[in-house]
Amino acid sequence: MNYFNPEDTICAITTGGGMSAIAIIRISGSKAIEITNSVFNKEISESKTHTLHFGDFIDDKEVVDEVLVSIFRGSKSFTGEESIEISCHGSIYIQNKIIQILIKNGCRLATAGEFSMRAFKNGKLDLTQAESVADLIESESEAAHKTALNQLKGGVSGKLKELRSQLIDFASLIELELDFSEEDVEFADREKFNDLLKNIKSELEKLIQSFKLGNSIKNGIPVTILGAPNVGKSTLLNCLLNEDKAIVSDIAGTTRDAIEDTLIIEGYNFRFIDTAGIRKTTDTIENLGIEKTLEKANKSEIILFTIDASQELESQIMELNKVRKDNREKILVIVNKIDVSDIDLKEDYIAISAKNGEGISALQNKLLNFINTEKISENDSIVSNLRHYEQLQLTLHEINSIINGMQNNISGDLLSINIRQALFHLGSITGEVTTDDLLGNIFGKFCIGK
Amino acid sequence: MNYFNPEDTICAITTGGGMSAIAIIRISGSKAIEITNSVFNKEISESKTHTLHFGDFIDDKEVVDEVLVSIFRGSKSFTGEESIEISCHGSIYIQNKIIQILIKNGCRLATAGEFSMRAFKNGKLDLTQAESVADLIESESEAAHKTALNQLKGGVSGKLKELRSQLIDFASLIELELDFSEEDVEFADREKFNDLLKNIKSELEKLIQSFKLGNSIKNGIPVTILGAPNVGKSTLLNCLLNEDKAIVSDIAGTTRDAIEDTLIIEGYNFRFIDTAGIRKTTDTIENLGIEKTLEKANKSEIILFTIDASQELESQIMELNKVRKDNREKILVIVNKIDVSDIDLKEDYIAISAKNGEGISALQNKLLNFINTEKISENDSIVSNLRHYEQLQLTLHEINSIINGMQNNISGDLLSINIRQALFHLGSITGEVTTDDLLGNIFGKFCIGK
Repeated sequence: MNYFNPEDTICAITTGGGMSAIAIIRISGSKAIEITNSVFNKEISESKTHTLHFGDFIDDKEVVDEVLVSIFRGSKSFTGEESIEISCHGSIYIQNKIIQILIKNGCRLATAGEFSMRAFKNGKLDLTQAESVADLIESESEAAHKTALNQLKGGVSGKLKELRSQLIDFASLIELELDFSEEDVEFADREKFNDLLKNIKSELEKLIQSFKLGNSIKNGIPVTILGAPNVGKSTLLNCLLNEDKAIVSDIAGTTRDAIEDTLIIEGYNFRFIDTAGIRKTTDTIENLGIEKTLEKANKSEIILFTIDASQELESQIMELNKVRKDNREKILVIVNKIDVSDIDLKEDYIAISAKNGEGISALQNKLLNFINTEKISENDSIVSNLRHYEQLQLTLHEINSIINGMQNNISGDLLSINIRQALFHLGSITGEVTTDDLLGNIFGKFCIGK
Repeated sequence: MNYFNPEDTICAITTGGGMSAIAIIRISGSKAIEITNSVFNKEISESKTHTLHFGDFIDDKEVVDEVLVSIFRGSKSFTGEESIEISCHGSIYIQNKIIQILIKNGCRLATAGEFSMRAFKNGKLDLTQAESVADLIESESEAAHKTALNQLKGGVSGKLKELRSQLIDFASLIELELDFSEEDVEFADREKFNDLLKNIKSELEKLIQSFKLGNSIKNGIPVTILGAPNVGKSTLLNCLLNEDKAIVSDIAGTTRDAIEDTLIIEGYNFRFIDTAGIRKTTDTIENLGIEKTLEKANKSEIILFTIDASQELESQIMELNKVRKDNREKILVIVNKIDVSDIDLKEDYIAISAKNGEGISALQNKLLNFINTEKISENDSIVSNLRHYEQLQLTLHEINSIINGMQNNISGDLLSINIRQALFHLGSITGEVTTDDLLGNIFGKFCIGK
């Protein structure tokens, strides 16, 4: 990702780009107002920030469109630069024409994420906030949306910045000790420092722990439907999704490839995975399918182990117990086909008929309860970004090294290496420490116009 | 099309609706500002028109998004009503959520074209101008865009309104004569009236004449590629479009169905139609294809009659002369395969090789010259709307009846019937005369949010 001259005035279509009633073209940079003024039939060079102006967009004395121009002055804009938004009629022809004319008059087409990049560089957003903008745009469920919004409001970065600033205070005291190393003084109160480290460790662990949920919220909570062949797994999937997604037949082993689809239940995005039935078989393709099934089950957050009430139970329960060994925490037992047959499993289970929909809303409630135990509380910060997660883990590694080092009375100069590393990783999350590569990597994933 | 209570405050997404950096939601109606104020964390009830306000969109004390609110007061807005535009992050979740919350707080979802309908009803746009908004959004080429913009700026309706107002003056004089019919007076100067009628007739004919071009500009100028089998018609189509659209083979008669695609050449949208080759054949399907071919040729604006320089010429020229009989004005003769063979047709033709692209840019220039003779001059009004065209024809019919009536000294009361009809048809174009059915029909074709 090559970011061009930050002195350029950039422009891009920020709305969908397709045909619509209205489209918005955004301009940012020192010449934004001057360039717009030269293609607009009203004088706006002295206009105040946050004002709207209706008029003609002009090229070579010809009217291109009737447009609405919004003015955002310097520090009051999203990017922190002089900015313009042009609201035009949403024909593809007009959108492209206006972009062409702006380029002819001195703008450059923005690269992906360049507006947010400038907002970051001008101190309008920190790095996690800028990243949350991309998440916010992509969020499909209420929970994903809340997590992104919390991050935009500074939820995660506020906490990290505070911890980092405390760590910096101690780091400077320890660096000071190094300067006076021959005199063997301790400026940094080791007990207080230990308390801080424990506090940081506990916060880091909480945030790292939250990533599992955060990532699930962002990408959908994976739920694998497991069970013997022909117990009605595909019928259950179709029933949950309320559409004919998976092929259903009476022939055992109809499903071979895992079939996935998502469903939003009360704001949470669940990703259901229908799998090949588990049984002993000599069919090579089927065995490959079963292998994949168990892999999926291990990776998912919740397993819906489905038992067919109308068939022989012993082998089904045996299989359940086998799967339960590795996945005790995440199994929900489903008894299907209660419209045909009724059984008593003598354990906690959900009785359903995937065929006629009985018990499905009870199942949905169970799914919600399942994640509710780790539900977002209003004040909790949730990490949903893989980059943050990785940096948090690296920070935790350094903090653990420092704690160990302290216990072993390691010298200050060795401690300070770990502290600097911890500060680097923490700072790279919020952008207090950055490299051009890192920025290119982050903003290159944004859409153009953002 | 049922239009709901015009007193309602309406809302809709006006940008594309898909995921994008930014989306715009528009609100219009007497409660637009009051409702927005109740879901926004800043006080805007006293804010001035054409101002922008950044803040949080709130539902039940929870932040839904950071948004930018634009305020348009009463007569200064597009609809002529109190209006708001909310610029939010363009996730589908957020867009839908904001619409839901607005509805919960007293808005109604706008029907298709309802904003433009209100602009018309509040006298902000006349009917042709409102219709041009839809055309403007759909315009794909520069010429279509110019025609729509000219219409939005009042090009066609200005002229019609002027003619109609002159006709009204005479109509009232003639109605006056009827009141004094026993006294046998003439208030309306018959000579002047005749001049006016001739003037109106000539203007109507010009506008009706312009529809052929206007419609072509809007929907693409149809160009049929004609010729014997295997002269390279499909190769020519592919060469013009610069892609492999039609199947090409050495076997005569490869193309059966007419294949169409459009190409914009210097702002004009041409719709090329590749057809089955014309020859005498006993193949029933092929004969049906040939029949369709000639039909297409008759309906198109331009015929590219393609001759194969490498084959026997006599029968090809015979076929050309046959087609020329009915379509003298619109034939361009193309001699293809000049890479293989060279001939002299002793008439005006374009020598090309569709295979290697030779002569194609000359052909494109000829196509442009062909329509240039009827090109839009800056001041010409072009009718591109079928509804307007039909009403213009009906008006012309009435005007002709009046002119005939005058020549035959028909009585004033009979004349006035024709005059009233003419006024009705003219008025229905600009919307000075409307019915609910007419309005429903026009605005129902708009997209929602417009």
